[in-house]
Amino acid sequence: MSPARVDEGSDRGFIVPVGGAESKLNDSTILKRFLKLSGGRKARIAIIPTASLAADTGERYESVFQELGAGSAEALPFEERSDGEDEALLDRLDHATGIFLTGGNQLRLSTHLGGTAVAKAIRRLNAAGVHVAGTSAGAAFLSEHMIAFGEEGSSPRAGIVTLAPGLGLTNRVIIDQHFRQRDRLGRLLTALAYNPFAVGLGLDEDTAAFIGPDNTIDVVGTGSVTLVDPSGIEFSSMDVAKANDPVCMLGIKLHILIQGSRFNLLTREASPGTVGVAKG
Amino acid sequence: MSPARVDEGSDRGFIVPVGGAESKLNDSTILKRFLKLSGGRKARIAIIPTASLAADTGERYESVFQELGAGSAEALPFEERSDGEDEALLDRLDHATGIFLTGGNQLRLSTHLGGTAVAKAIRRLNAAGVHVAGTSAGAAFLSEHMIAFGEEGSSPRAGIVTLAPGLGLTNRVIIDQHFRQRDRLGRLLTALAYNPFAVGLGLDEDTAAFIGPDNTIDVVGTGSVTLVDPSGIEFSSMDVAKANDPVCMLGIKLHILIQGSRFNLLTREASPGTVGVAKG
Repeated sequence: MSPARVDEGSDRGFIVPVGGAESKLNDSTILKRFLKLSGGRKARIAIIPTASLAADTGERYESVFQELGAGSAEALPFEERSDGEDEALLDRLDHATGIFLTGGNQLRLSTHLGGTAVAKAIRRLNAAGVHVAGTSAGAAFLSEHMIAFGEEGSSPRAGIVTLAPGLGLTNRVIIDQHFRQRDRLGRLLTALAYNPFAVGLGLDEDTAAFIGPDNTIDVVGTGSVTLVDPSGIEFSSMDVAKANDPVCMLGIKLHILIQGSRFNLLTREASPGTVGVAKG
Repeated sequence: MSPARVDEGSDRGFIVPVGGAESKLNDSTILKRFLKLSGGRKARIAIIPTASLAADTGERYESVFQELGAGSAEALPFEERSDGEDEALLDRLDHATGIFLTGGNQLRLSTHLGGTAVAKAIRRLNAAGVHVAGTSAGAAFLSEHMIAFGEEGSSPRAGIVTLAPGLGLTNRVIIDQHFRQRDRLGRLLTALAYNPFAVGLGLDEDTAAFIGPDNTIDVVGTGSVTLVDPSGIEFSSMDVAKANDPVCMLGIKLHILIQGSRFNLLTREASPGTVGVAKG
């Protein structure tokens, strides 16, 4: 489930986890930005509604992207695992300039798409420059290590989060969504405590992290991204904690990023970017 | 509302904020530790139930401390502001070796006791070596800057927290309680963003910070203390944020402390203490 190899001289596409409940009306800053990246009026958006059990999720996003001015927007009904090998569907996916995974249940994504040709195709397309966004469950699924489910609460406790292999577009981040709205810092910290190599991204609703080919994150939307950098951790009791014990974690770095601010995943440096810069 | 002066050669008493809902039965680690500090069988515990509207709060803690073996435990009914000048009540307070503020509403504490002789007496007694604990609302009130009320949610937003002057035993910390249970990181971060000079202490229920005369914090209880150190903050957008805007805060340090671990408020260093040390 590692990212596909990027050819020399070319760039992978953006990876865009969205915290859920993104605006779909006039203020749809996130979807507009994704659409613009993907070519605007020339964009061909492939929508993957697999996470959702609602029959109209795909159609709804078709309308939204069409109203925002996409060249085309088409939902691809990957419903059963066998659909993941369907040549006609895969061929339509192959023509996309942007791929959008809807919300629902991330375990539907991992169980239905994991290990199929469509998962491989998305990794290959992203490596070749196609942008891939996912909202809510679709966001969780993008990374190599996916939060499948967990418990609420701001502080970490042993065993309150369950990780599963995700799509694997990047392994640099562990993503959580509806972050402010569903009180999820504790489960994200717990996930990072298992192995503090990744950076935690807690995405509020209507907020997205645009992870560029240069591995800088640009925040877009009306909420914030709680970025947890555990790389400087001085001590953790995760190895000796018993089920549901509180976990001691010393030396975590925290950045609250809002629209305009940035984080470099390579240097682990945060910057205010355009935040607070006077306009006009 | 600054701490009273500590005489040369003597130590102030411990300041002990408790996150609320502390165990009062066999496992009452926190209350036992406070009682032991205060002299055990020789302890005279003064209970201040002012925060609570329940008529039996004082009596309940009298029973609890008596059952735990206190020399004496007496609730002092400071109900109206005029009680705060009552010589008989103040005289009884003067004999305490430990003072315990119950839960309820911290604005009852600040509005009823603020600026009265009893508030001054507690500061003077603490400076003279008497230990002062508070649970829930009683914890919030201990510090110079008190969180009066605020909104839930893990990320900071301008205006979601209201600070008020507290009792003023220390100005080194801003305290929040029921922390994990009531999703309060956002309001604590917002409070710290106003002026990042203090350290934030987010106390889970049944969890206490024993702040010693040397300004080291020792954690006791079954939950964790989320310690937020904003001193290294690199950027904040608090000065330009409008009401309810998300707030950008870069470079916050976070420690999750559990029983046995420690934090030095002077050097701002966390240590695992006895956490993870094999027993026997």
